[in-house]
Amino acid sequence: MKLSSLSANEKPFIGVRRADGIVNVNAAIPGLPTDVGALLQSPAYDAQQLADVVERTAVSSLLRDDEVRFRPVIPAPGKLLCLGLNYVDHAAESAHRAPEYPVVFGRYPTSLVGHGEPLVLPSVSTHFDYEAELGVVIGKTCRKVSREQALEHVAGYTLLNDGSIRDYQMRTHQWTIGKNVDATGALGPELVTADELPAGAKGLVLRGILNGTIMQEANTSDMIFGVADAIAILSEVMTLEVGDMIATGTPGGVGFVRNPPVFMKPGDVFEVQVERVGTLRNHVVAEGPGPLKGSAL
Amino acid sequence: MKLSSLSANEKPFIGVRRADGIVNVNAAIPGLPTDVGALLQSPAYDAQQLADVVERTAVSSLLRDDEVRFRPVIPAPGKLLCLGLNYVDHAAESAHRAPEYPVVFGRYPTSLVGHGEPLVLPSVSTHFDYEAELGVVIGKTCRKVSREQALEHVAGYTLLNDGSIRDYQMRTHQWTIGKNVDATGALGPELVTADELPAGAKGLVLRGILNGTIMQEANTSDMIFGVADAIAILSEVMTLEVGDMIATGTPGGVGFVRNPPVFMKPGDVFEVQVERVGTLRNHVVAEGPGPLKGSAL
Repeated sequence: MKLSSLSANEKPFIGVRRADGIVNVNAAIPGLPTDVGALLQSPAYDAQQLADVVERTAVSSLLRDDEVRFRPVIPAPGKLLCLGLNYVDHAAESAHRAPEYPVVFGRYPTSLVGHGEPLVLPSVSTHFDYEAELGVVIGKTCRKVSREQALEHVAGYTLLNDGSIRDYQMRTHQWTIGKNVDATGALGPELVTADELPAGAKGLVLRGILNGTIMQEANTSDMIFGVADAIAILSEVMTLEVGDMIATGTPGGVGFVRNPPVFMKPGDVFEVQVERVGTLRNHVVAEGPGPLKGSAL
Repeated sequence: MKLSSLSANEKPFIGVRRADGIVNVNAAIPGLPTDVGALLQSPAYDAQQLADVVERTAVSSLLRDDEVRFRPVIPAPGKLLCLGLNYVDHAAESAHRAPEYPVVFGRYPTSLVGHGEPLVLPSVSTHFDYEAELGVVIGKTCRKVSREQALEHVAGYTLLNDGSIRDYQMRTHQWTIGKNVDATGALGPELVTADELPAGAKGLVLRGILNGTIMQEANTSDMIFGVADAIAILSEVMTLEVGDMIATGTPGGVGFVRNPPVFMKPGDVFEVQVERVGTLRNHVVAEGPGPLKGSAL
């Protein structure tokens, strides 16, 4: 099942994709939460019920992609833990050794937009880089889980553009600020439930595409710490809760290490693609002159 | 006003301190949110109404501190941004230069407990260090706010023990994991509203006390980036939302740089004190053998 956190006319709801369109499942199930993160946490979450609703929805009730707005698929993860340098080629191009333990930083919701929404180049920088990544969404709370049992705790997978303002990222040794500039990252479009993908989402081609040119290409099997590794290692010391997310890192080909460097400019379009997970597409706009009011720009 | 996120018999509520006890304001105001973070975000938040309730509550309805449990005062901040190395003496003792731009890392709610609740020494480490800090709670959403107007966006101040598992913190160049081990930090006991303190909470004595011995002592005026600086600098690139928090860093005297090093052990008690903000006290327990189930240990 492919679930998304959508809105239409400012009204939030959960969509489920069918071959011929998107089903608004809130229209059929009163009281259901209206975003995928809250749904996963809800005792009312019943995948079979959703599947039944999706199957019996009339064609006339289906929504087209251009009739909805995509919010970040998990709008407010309790934790969004991002693995850095998790592909050997990206570690090398960034002048880092491949890590022996995961390099982790955090992103917060104000830094993220949904599929199709604009990424915002802030007025204070031109160093806006892209990072195509696979995202993991936790479906069952876990602590101290083994590698063997780790994948049982995954609800599904999604896509992330871990967009980075490189000059801010590198101002100090902690990367947090350059990874948390408003509306510089994207999350979605959909949560693809784990049952639709290979175990650990292994063996899938991942691409980062800038204005139609493939800038990053790798296989999810090339991660240094795979999904099961990451869950086991992180949960050794912290509880992973339902709706928490792990961004699994980006492969080689990012912009700031190219010669000359490539940064995203207003009008650019960046796509994150992972086979069978989908395409996350966002265009870039320049920050307006006035004060901003949050990430839903 | 001094607000706290409490529970009694597993039932959450908001407390307001009076000279002679704690008022359960939810008992008097139906529909009020039951934690301070949600209260600040709620259109129903009316400080005058709360003050009236507090004043007219009968003595017989007051609660004693030993009748309640303290949850983290903001149980789930949208962002908890922690400033590192923000006092010159701590930067020096940690072999870092004083930063010219804030060093920022993030903590997540699973790492935090309330006042009086146990801090948990994880089974995988003995390097459990304390960090006494002043915490700032955002009360009005802001982006690109000037230093001059920054403090208008502060709801109030609280205390944080930014407890750190040092060996995990130093495993890679990003500190996130060592700062996010389950139940290794504490937040509270109360939000002291900004009107009760000097502007920017400046000029207050801050202490970190281990088993009755003062290990850290500084003045909040000694911060490299003061509260107004931090809000202005962070909001240059990110929206600070209501309920977001800034931990303002710890002064010199932490345990891992001492000779010999001092780490917290089961049975230890650590107190964070800031003049007029209160005392945050927690004891340390060893992690139990079984799987854990979250931060409310």
